[in-house]
Amino acid sequence: DPKLKIFALNSNKPLAEKIAKAVGVELGKTSVDRFRDGEIRINIEESIRGDEVYIVQSTSAPVNDNLMEMLIMIDALKRASAKTINIVIPYYGYARQDRKARSREPITAKLVANMIERAGATRIIALDLHAAQIQGFFDIPLDHLMGAPLLADHFIERGLDQDTVVVSPDHGGVTRARKLAEFLKAPIAIIDKRRPRANVAEVMNIIGEVKGKRCIMIDDMIDTAGTITLGAQALMDAGATEVYASCTHPVLSGPAIERIQNSPIKELIVTDSIQLPEEKKIDKITSISVGPLIGEAIRLIHENKPVSPLFNNRFS
Amino acid sequence: DPKLKIFALNSNKPLAEKIAKAVGVELGKTSVDRFRDGEIRINIEESIRGDEVYIVQSTSAPVNDNLMEMLIMIDALKRASAKTINIVIPYYGYARQDRKARSREPITAKLVANMIERAGATRIIALDLHAAQIQGFFDIPLDHLMGAPLLADHFIERGLDQDTVVVSPDHGGVTRARKLAEFLKAPIAIIDKRRPRANVAEVMNIIGEVKGKRCIMIDDMIDTAGTITLGAQALMDAGATEVYASCTHPVLSGPAIERIQNSPIKELIVTDSIQLPEEKKIDKITSISVGPLIGEAIRLIHENKPVSPLFNNRFS
Ligand SMILES: Nc1ncnc2c1ncn2[C@@H]1O[C@H](COP(=O)(O)O)[C@@H](O)[C@H]1O
Ligand SMILES: Nc1ncnc2c1ncn2[C@@H]1O[C@H](COP(=O)(O)O)[C@@H](O)[C@H]1O
Repeated sequence: DPKLKIFALNSNKPLAEKIAKAVGVELGKTSVDRFRDGEIRINIEESIRGDEVYIVQSTSAPVNDNLMEMLIMIDALKRASAKTINIVIPYYGYARQDRKARSREPITAKLVANMIERAGATRIIALDLHAAQIQGFFDIPLDHLMGAPLLADHFIERGLDQDTVVVSPDHGGVTRARKLAEFLKAPIAIIDKRRPRANVAEVMNIIGEVKGKRCIMIDDMIDTAGTITLGAQALMDAGATEVYASCTHPVLSGPAIERIQNSPIKELIVTDSIQLPEEKKIDKITSISVGPLIGEAIRLIHENKPVSPLFNNRFS
Repeated sequence: DPKLKIFALNSNKPLAEKIAKAVGVELGKTSVDRFRDGEIRINIEESIRGDEVYIVQSTSAPVNDNLMEMLIMIDALKRASAKTINIVIPYYGYARQDRKARSREPITAKLVANMIERAGATRIIALDLHAAQIQGFFDIPLDHLMGAPLLADHFIERGLDQDTVVVSPDHGGVTRARKLAEFLKAPIAIIDKRRPRANVAEVMNIIGEVKGKRCIMIDDMIDTAGTITLGAQALMDAGATEVYASCTHPVLSGPAIERIQNSPIKELIVTDSIQLPEEKKIDKITSISVGPLIGEAIRLIHENKPVSPLFNNRFS
């Protein structure tokens, strides 16, 4: 029987450990480091011939290094005769470059998909892709996992689903907010940013009722945290009693941490799809692990079973 | 008529400027920078529809960033309907990972070739590839330029070809040394490193006559400079009057600069295939430009002429 093996690269070893634990295996032995000139050196320290291999790697910052680690590892596994090469990508970098918004722009999310396939991956396991269309960038099977049920469980366990409105910070995120709202059996509201005239500051209109309510804002990722913190202020101004924020992917670049600290956001709930460096682990941020979810998905895939039961009709 | 356009990415803009000058065009307008989270943002600021486009990018350190810039630029050019996408790679990173020396190693030089082709490149212009076999990693046309004639010209102009022996620092580099020696009409010598028994220091044997002679060591690249500086000492110990060193690619990582400073190497002659940061521009290092050579190659390619006259029978 082909063995199931899980290898961690450098972007998120703590999550890889949790996934391996959930699956009930030890992480595969490998060393992934650098030559003196900065080139990546990979050493797979156990035979994987004929095995079903899973790699865990988020393409978070440093995105290019993490992506190249993944591609080189795929190349090494392919040449070492792995039976299947399954790539777990908890956070898919370059996902926002998924279309030509202007002339002569690259579509880097597609380029990355092409690179991963060309290197020799046979399956992708992704989590909350910025756009579901990125699934179609691949011609190999892709399982698309969802963080919303986990976030919902967390809010329900803490009783934060009562007197609550789920808020989408922009128009693009309404479907996502709708999903969480279903799980929480809560209504939704939408923040509608508009610039009344050119060279005039944006106005935040709130569509839906938030006065006297707890608000939970949800997004797939929080990057510089501009949208979410301004949105939180707008919700407080509109009479919300308290504002929680949540996202699957805590990108948190540049001024994000400072903005969150200085905002009326009471607490930000994120997942560990991206490993937070120590300086970003602040009291206001609570992290819940997608390790058990991904582990369960790997178990189902390995047994040739569909992963959809992890999400469908979950709260019905 | 399709226009010839040259774009510089970030690894080596001074060289790109020199190439454009040699060709007689202005560099294309583009901005290549970063989003807040470190992802590469590329903006091509002029139409290139139907044009013959050349990109100049060395995949020197930071190798993964420089490689991704190249791939994303290729993607953007392809989607913007460039007629041809020609990639000038003065220094080809990951070239030493060109074979499986041990089990379960990747062949990253081939992976990189696959990535460049898959992204949409139509031609490669390379300079002194670590192994000529890397040409075969591509299925698109590749022009392989040579730095040795330039280095030879330099030595001849300075009269350093008299009473001179060209020295290969190891067995792998003999063909390269042989080439330079031909240009200089000089004899060759070889440094033969051997470990007499396990756990005993290596002994440097010199094959050939160096006593009372000027030595010019040549290699394709100098990385940590261990081989070349130990070799220089061995040559002095064997009675050489002075030792010059030369290479096409000044990788110069880790202890390289310090080793060169403290070595008996009188002068190191390199090319600008890799841009040297300020702290590596020391008095002992002389840089000669491959800009005119690459410019001439581009002109020949654009006119559908062979580039080989740049090298063949050059000194005969
Ligand atoms: N890493 C990034 N950081 C910020 N903006 C980005 C990034 N990558 C792409 N974009 C831009 O974000 C826009 C897409 O974002 P969205 O509308 O949220 O899908 C595009 O116009 C991209 O140019
Ligand atoms: N960036 C690098 N720095 C140092 N050694 C490397 C690098 N890349 C590959 N190698 C090793 O160098 C050897 C090949 O070097 P060579 O014999 O000079 O072709 C291989 O065994 C590689 O493992």
